[in-house]
Amino acid sequence: MVKYAIGDFFADGFFSPSATEGGNVGMIIVMEKNASEDQIRHVSERLQEEGFQVHLSKGVKKTIIGAIGERTPAVMESFEVLPGVEKIVPIIQPFKLASREFQEKSTSIKVGEAVVGNGSLQIIAGPCAVEGREKFLEAAHLVKEAGATMLRGGAFKPRTSPYSFQGLAKQGLEILAEARELTGLPIVTEIMDTRMVELVAEYADILQVGARNMQNFFLLKELGKIDKPVLLKRGPSATIEEWIMAAEYIMSSGNKKVIMCERGIRTFEKYTRNTLDLSAVPLIKQLTHLPVIVDPSHGTGKWKLVEPMALAAVAAGCDGLMVEVHQNPSEALSDGPQSLIPDNFKRLVLKINKISSVLKNDY
Amino acid sequence: MVKYAIGDFFADGFFSPSATEGGNVGMIIVMEKNASEDQIRHVSERLQEEGFQVHLSKGVKKTIIGAIGERTPAVMESFEVLPGVEKIVPIIQPFKLASREFQEKSTSIKVGEAVVGNGSLQIIAGPCAVEGREKFLEAAHLVKEAGATMLRGGAFKPRTSPYSFQGLAKQGLEILAEARELTGLPIVTEIMDTRMVELVAEYADILQVGARNMQNFFLLKELGKIDKPVLLKRGPSATIEEWIMAAEYIMSSGNKKVIMCERGIRTFEKYTRNTLDLSAVPLIKQLTHLPVIVDPSHGTGKWKLVEPMALAAVAAGCDGLMVEVHQNPSEALSDGPQSLIPDNFKRLVLKINKISSVLKNDY
Amino acid sequence: MVKYAIGDFFADGFFSPSATEGGNVGMIIVMEKNASEDQIRHVSERLQEEGFQVHLSKGVKKTIIGAIGERTPAVMESFEVLPGVEKIVPIIQPFKLASREFQEKSTSIKVGEAVVGNGSLQIIAGPCAVEGREKFLEAAHLVKEAGATMLRGGAFKPRTSPYSFQGLAKQGLEILAEARELTGLPIVTEIMDTRMVELVAEYADILQVGARNMQNFFLLKELGKIDKPVLLKRGPSATIEEWIMAAEYIMSSGNKKVIMCERGIRTFEKYTRNTLDLSAVPLIKQLTHLPVIVDPSHGTGKWKLVEPMALAAVAAGCDGLMVEVHQNPSEALSDGPQSLIPDNFKRLVLKINKISSVLKNDY
Amino acid sequence: MVKYAIGDFFADGFFSPSATEGGNVGMIIVMEKNASEDQIRHVSERLQEEGFQVHLSKGVKKTIIGAIGERTPAVMESFEVLPGVEKIVPIIQPFKLASREFQEKSTSIKVGEAVVGNGSLQIIAGPCAVEGREKFLEAAHLVKEAGATMLRGGAFKPRTSPYSFQGLAKQGLEILAEARELTGLPIVTEIMDTRMVELVAEYADILQVGARNMQNFFLLKELGKIDKPVLLKRGPSATIEEWIMAAEYIMSSGNKKVIMCERGIRTFEKYTRNTLDLSAVPLIKQLTHLPVIVDPSHGTGKWKLVEPMALAAVAAGCDGLMVEVHQNPSEALSDGPQSLIPDNFKRLVLKINKISSVLKNDY
Repeated sequence: MVKYAIGDFFADGFFSPSATEGGNVGMIIVMEKNASEDQIRHVSERLQEEGFQVHLSKGVKKTIIGAIGERTPAVMESFEVLPGVEKIVPIIQPFKLASREFQEKSTSIKVGEAVVGNGSLQIIAGPCAVEGREKFLEAAHLVKEAGATMLRGGAFKPRTSPYSFQGLAKQGLEILAEARELTGLPIVTEIMDTRMVELVAEYADILQVGARNMQNFFLLKELGKIDKPVLLKRGPSATIEEWIMAAEYIMSSGNKKVIMCERGIRTFEKYTRNTLDLSAVPLIKQLTHLPVIVDPSHGTGKWKLVEPMALAAVAAGCDGLMVEVHQNPSEALSDGPQSLIPDNFKRLVLKINKISSVLKNDY
Repeated sequence: MVKYAIGDFFADGFFSPSATEGGNVGMIIVMEKNASEDQIRHVSERLQEEGFQVHLSKGVKKTIIGAIGERTPAVMESFEVLPGVEKIVPIIQPFKLASREFQEKSTSIKVGEAVVGNGSLQIIAGPCAVEGREKFLEAAHLVKEAGATMLRGGAFKPRTSPYSFQGLAKQGLEILAEARELTGLPIVTEIMDTRMVELVAEYADILQVGARNMQNFFLLKELGKIDKPVLLKRGPSATIEEWIMAAEYIMSSGNKKVIMCERGIRTFEKYTRNTLDLSAVPLIKQLTHLPVIVDPSHGTGKWKLVEPMALAAVAAGCDGLMVEVHQNPSEALSDGPQSLIPDNFKRLVLKINKISSVLKNDY
Repeated sequence: MVKYAIGDFFADGFFSPSATEGGNVGMIIVMEKNASEDQIRHVSERLQEEGFQVHLSKGVKKTIIGAIGERTPAVMESFEVLPGVEKIVPIIQPFKLASREFQEKSTSIKVGEAVVGNGSLQIIAGPCAVEGREKFLEAAHLVKEAGATMLRGGAFKPRTSPYSFQGLAKQGLEILAEARELTGLPIVTEIMDTRMVELVAEYADILQVGARNMQNFFLLKELGKIDKPVLLKRGPSATIEEWIMAAEYIMSSGNKKVIMCERGIRTFEKYTRNTLDLSAVPLIKQLTHLPVIVDPSHGTGKWKLVEPMALAAVAAGCDGLMVEVHQNPSEALSDGPQSLIPDNFKRLVLKINKISSVLKNDY
Repeated sequence: MVKYAIGDFFADGFFSPSATEGGNVGMIIVMEKNASEDQIRHVSERLQEEGFQVHLSKGVKKTIIGAIGERTPAVMESFEVLPGVEKIVPIIQPFKLASREFQEKSTSIKVGEAVVGNGSLQIIAGPCAVEGREKFLEAAHLVKEAGATMLRGGAFKPRTSPYSFQGLAKQGLEILAEARELTGLPIVTEIMDTRMVELVAEYADILQVGARNMQNFFLLKELGKIDKPVLLKRGPSATIEEWIMAAEYIMSSGNKKVIMCERGIRTFEKYTRNTLDLSAVPLIKQLTHLPVIVDPSHGTGKWKLVEPMALAAVAAGCDGLMVEVHQNPSEALSDGPQSLIPDNFKRLVLKINKISSVLKNDY
């Protein structure tokens, strides 16, 4: 009835860093109907050699072996190919540092004067990309006036050649820094390559990992070594568990300041660019102690859906929103169709705050 | 760049009833790079024979033919196999009666004293199945007290033999009717077989089409002939367009009282039973004039997610909720893990109403 | 790590018929980290009351309870909501009659002179729909000549009104019967409504359940009462397990002659109408004793992909193919773009037979 | 009817490099039902400003504007937000250098003595990871003897710290080189980080881009600058178009030697780790001129499915296979459950060659 192998979660050589630190890892081994006594004994012995506590349950038709220990997924997986084994069922979640069980108190993260988590609601807004100094500074002022609490903007573009982009990137980062100076808003910007972590960390208040990089483990490891918060977007085809495991990767490398960001998953639906999975909000809160924000702009791909989905995200209990705002979406160099104009954004902030305050009274 | 055939939308012989009634159906025919003049002429001539207005655009490398007319998808599809044709791109949405373009004013549906749509928020609650008279009447009282405005409960079970279930079903329907009598709440119950439409319509105030029957066209046609509202659940793998087409099916068969119900779609995510697609709420409101409600119980499969997702659905602008409530979920014969207990439900209703009233002031 | 509830497999009140007949059903109950001794005892006692053998494993951080017995999924699911329970992990597959464990020998099904299974390769071909007598008889002759071993054609159309379609249907069925008479080929045709099972069974050699009806349990039950083979198409969003469960439904209702048919699943890919899941072929053979055929026409939606995917299906070990062939696809009333012309089909049959014979020598 | 925005294909700032070089890019702009004359004129004028040829089609209810030109997707997308525009439908595929239209002749790539493409069938085999010198050399001999034509093995592990892994990696690469020396087989190994392209290119005959890195644009760009073939795995949630676009990225950066590798996509099915999409094989051959190989090991995650799916892939027309083979899968440090033992692999090679030769005679 349970059909996926441990390998699903550790595919392609991925390795849960915290699992090695031990803990209460367990699994159930279901033996084949015709498994011989010898095969059952062999599995039990190997389990004991690996330090597992073993519990045998012989049914009329099948034998089931329970094993509890502190071994890595790779060790557990190795039992799947022993003779007589039908399947393995892992029974403990593979993340640890991120889990609510490990730390009951919700994490809140200070960013300048602002706090992500702890009941506050951060509204991160701005254009998709930093397209030019004046335009961006104007946008920064507009979103601040409308009620944004942080500023977003992409400084890096994959389009540019690796020889030129660092210069360009740096210029983008400097514009971002200038905008922070002028507005007082912390800045959030994307990091896409291991070679630039140091540079971006120098400027940004929060480093964003894009959806496509969620399982770029080299990048996650580098981000584990800096002292800035990381906003980790969910990959478009990542399960919630894989997403938490990516957070675990950063945390186990040394950086505990991880902010989760739901931005839609890929489904068969075609009206929307992605299907925004709002159930991720309460799930992240139940499974982990990390703050979670929602990006309804990428999550839907259509500006007409941004307001209702932003309100829904707040009602679902998120710690913040990330919204694309552009003075003139029809001239935006990227992602115009999902950007709000400042007036719509202002209206949205008002509604968000109303819902947010009603809910606070409620809980 | 556009990659699916018309056939995607009319797969397996499905036929849009309203499309036959004409309208402004159109398509673009992209010719192959090496299409000959003869092939282009042949396609143009056939288009004209079929009554299309034809617009030729010859580019340097490709010829594109625009065609506007009033033909059925089957006719459009037939062009895809003509020599020299690379692909067809349909450009008008295939539904008509359900569309906001056809009827600008939102539909509201009277059910007893209640109204679905028109700014009201219906809360349909009750256990998954009618499991017995006394238990159900008790549940009915409890959900009414907690604030439900309609009562739900399944009278039919596929599990029973076809020789016995009609009797059982009738008994279930009678219990539902008794509960309505006692509480004054309209009743919503599922219809699963063409042979029982008449019987169920006699008792129920709203007939529910389950997710698995969304494309049971024989059933939809039968429901098009009755004078009771139909609550149409979205299929777990149905696109929003296919779902609207199913509504169109009922409507074109004569019954305009269709209520859409989002209940989650099937994705790769495993923590939740389904992924509740709340973007469907604003999309249904933008694309159609029909009311739309949300079922967070089936939509998540976990009672701990019901409250946040119900609140999110309200914030997204839905016209109602359908929530499973059970006095004792651990004894429920089906879907226990997704049922709220009455106390939790009561608390939920309070929160729903707060959000709902804040939003009303806002809009 | 294991993330779905039993309810996933028995959603919406679905009930595994064979599970009631007992067998070696089992589950693991993972208790919450902070579960009290009382909660653990309470769960254990209820398990014993329900007749389960209980095995307790207390780890440093968590307690895990193994339970083996002969109870239905509904009973197992009821434990998920007991206080202190984190989750339930079912560990035995929910199907029985269809399973390879229940019957080791592969099922082969006689249809007229032909045999489905047992190493033979059936090639079921014909147009999507019976569009007229002469045309269909011509098609029948053409596909027979080209090497088809069975004839397919749809007699029912959802488009027609319920008052007229039975007549039309009957005429279609009579044309099918005439084609069988003339060619000697057994006929396969779709059944879509419980009200017509008797009529169709009178004419058809194999009754086909369409993908959208795979979980129409009332229809499955009716098909369980007839003495004709049923070709069960996989639903576009059905897991392999749900598909086998649908077969189980027919089998437990009395009809053991079930032929599985893979026809593509719904994914995010857009070039193809569906993603043909050929891994279903060896999986059905490993998990069940039923024959399995493949429909590359619906499975891809593009005639240019039919040949390579048909050959791949044969190489993967299927027991037959179902291929749409039409004299003039551009005039076909449905599914033209995925139909082969007779010449292409003839070439395909030659290749199929070559691969098939090479593989036979190999195994 | 057409439901996705141009942005779907160029999401998150992705930019089609070849589109800038012009070509016959086109789109259809569907105006809203109530679009004013002014709005229509405004759109037309902006199109002309951007250099598009404009074709107006005024229907009874809607106006449709055809536009043909040589502009980038970003320019096309910018029209979606103009007043009165309902949607944009792009009508030309976004890739160019990779397309069969651009280069009719199939690309074949020399690797040592071997050729990928041009009718040959490459069998790339070996363990998932290089786990040690002796073991790997033994594996290399075993797979060569069994009929492999190339050798695979991963030298990099995300698990190790960035300070130590380069040394380890280098050692792994040296073992690979030694194995090539001894067996004469070209070696294929994965590259995961921009910082290591130079080093890996020094050793490997083919550099493999893993599924998770398919849209790591910085890495693709670096690979565009080397003179070694790149094996590009399809991302688990990448459409075929996105996958081809990733190839386009490498090609437009200067490296034309790209080999596509289908390795399964993520779907709702749970028995298999991924759903191997074999229709990708004929589609890549129809849409592009690049060779395509298949990885049935990762594509299924179960060694029992590797043989049937490998045979199916060959029958579907692939140019090669990539198969995991391990002397002792139960001791493999990663991906044991999907590895064949050498004996099974040997048997597989025999069958592959039989099918391959039958098909050659056929075509």
